Amino acid sequence: MRLRGLGELRLVSGIRDAFRSSASGLLTGIGDDAAVVAPPKGKRLVFTTDTMVEGVHFSLAYCKPRDIGFKSVSVNVSDVHAMAARPLYILMSISISPDEDASLFRGIMSGVRDALKLYRIALIGGDMTAAAKGALTITITAIGAAAKPALRSGARPGDHIYVTGPLGDSAMGLRLLQHPDLKKRLGAKTAQALINRHLRPVSNPITPAVARRASAMMDISDGLLIDLSRLCTESAVGAQVHESAVPISAELRAAAAKLRIDPLDLAMRGGEDYELIVVSRHKLPGTRFNRVGEIIGKGFIIVDAMGVRRKAAPGGFDHFKAMNKGKG
Amino acid sequence: MRLRGLGELRLVSGIRDAFRSSASGLLTGIGDDAAVVAPPKGKRLVFTTDTMVEGVHFSLAYCKPRDIGFKSVSVNVSDVHAMAARPLYILMSISISPDEDASLFRGIMSGVRDALKLYRIALIGGDMTAAAKGALTITITAIGAAAKPALRSGARPGDHIYVTGPLGDSAMGLRLLQHPDLKKRLGAKTAQALINRHLRPVSNPITPAVARRASAMMDISDGLLIDLSRLCTESAVGAQVHESAVPISAELRAAAAKLRIDPLDLAMRGGEDYELIVVSRHKLPGTRFNRVGEIIGKGFIIVDAMGVRRKAAPGGFDHFKAMNKGKG
Repeated sequence: MRLRGLGELRLVSGIRDAFRSSASGLLTGIGDDAAVVAPPKGKRLVFTTDTMVEGVHFSLAYCKPRDIGFKSVSVNVSDVHAMAARPLYILMSISISPDEDASLFRGIMSGVRDALKLYRIALIGGDMTAAAKGALTITITAIGAAAKPALRSGARPGDHIYVTGPLGDSAMGLRLLQHPDLKKRLGAKTAQALINRHLRPVSNPITPAVARRASAMMDISDGLLIDLSRLCTESAVGAQVHESAVPISAELRAAAAKLRIDPLDLAMRGGEDYELIVVSRHKLPGTRFNRVGEIIGKGFIIVDAMGVRRKAAPGGFDHFKAMNKGKG
Repeated sequence: MRLRGLGELRLVSGIRDAFRSSASGLLTGIGDDAAVVAPPKGKRLVFTTDTMVEGVHFSLAYCKPRDIGFKSVSVNVSDVHAMAARPLYILMSISISPDEDASLFRGIMSGVRDALKLYRIALIGGDMTAAAKGALTITITAIGAAAKPALRSGARPGDHIYVTGPLGDSAMGLRLLQHPDLKKRLGAKTAQALINRHLRPVSNPITPAVARRASAMMDISDGLLIDLSRLCTESAVGAQVHESAVPISAELRAAAAKLRIDPLDLAMRGGEDYELIVVSRHKLPGTRFNRVGEIIGKGFIIVDAMGVRRKAAPGGFDHFKAMNKGKG
């Protein structure tokens, strides 16, 4: 059945029933002019918003509606995690053609629900509007709380640069989706692992212990190099990155070898990893945090596996310059 | 110059400079993974989001970019005011074709700035993404604070129903924009007043004294009757509305008489007024609040100027059923 046949009121009332929540601090959820929240005491609140546009961020040709819904939440949660904050609530605005089948809408909302469950957050409000066919747009605003949010601007020379990982899987996954001929040349398991990292990225928070040690943080959405360079700009510092320390998965290595693609390029510039950059003057414990470099006074330097240093031009994704190239 | 030529980074950095804010409670604004806010003590926070889509909510054929920006903020502020809350911050996501001229984007942002100034609020974050030409989409999330937010669900039989006004001007203004032949038949001053109410609606807050007396509130975005019926549904009550008490401007009366349109129909069902419904068991002071009826146990009744009562079918705007009819 088409969305037009269901009508806005019935759709919204369906969402309200399906997403009823008893989340902590939530006094009034979906259904009033605005949601009402009692903010957690002694905490800062963080707010972020991210939009996914059909034909720009995803294609219905190779993205399942459920994955689109899931990812639209994940990319926002990633920004909250990047502040060393705990995600609490989201608001969601969806613009969709009334001529679309209701299954598209329901699939998206199923994916949103998967993500809410995983991240233990609540959908507290939203908007639903008509759009032209092919112009499906999802905007999510996420709200989180932190005792002491980690900014991009706190990095100082001498600090260690850590990244969670692996990096580059998502970019390779997107290539496989866009070029089924490449996908056929890989084992099904390898291909699917990489594709899943693109379609259904999961953002993992840092622990409070790590948060206390972070001098600066950022998530990796446009590519390690460009995002790290942005963090450096905000902190008025430079960075040195050791290529050999950048975490690359076994799947990416295998796929890249087979397809004669440089895995390091994908890991450094691929984007959509939704992993975290954590800068700290302390050694971070555990295997999750890969020390990829150090903050320096100025400049942006890459050190290759042979120890050769070169100046880097941090490439990354610019929506307005690289539109034609597309982005998954 | 086209947006593509400017590039995302330059655009975002321009916004950051132009919208730098020292708003109360704002610790980190545009430029990090998320904005950081110290929530006001002892207050509830309210959150709302509203989207405006090109070709659905506005047409560039007759809306200036600056008006679109202004209105996209106003419609959200209206929802915050409807909670008896004070607006504090907004986040804005804009999806726009890289092939659009930069003047479109700049015009929109000028209108946003006008609104920020008027409402004394700050833009604290956002997202900018590419979209197909003709699919310009603006989503704003507004954050407000209130000691005691006014919900839709507090109305009780015997309460008075007040509306701020006048109502129907916006709907008439839209007709004039869509049918220039009608516009020509009116005086320029009358036509412009009505059109301005559509293109550049201003939401006015209620005073704390009125807020304390409100048992339920809602803003009028889809039309008085449908919105009041929604408030009644949330409160599990009915309503009786006196047609003769519905506030209609001199401009709407004059235009409607000339064009042989029923001004009452526009005032009751027109939508996009962004005025407020305030339900109270007290008499509200001042001339701003027009007592249009009373809450009853159940049913939805309209009383005409002759005192004749009839059951009402609250008509209003449904995005998914009335898409073809369009909405300004």
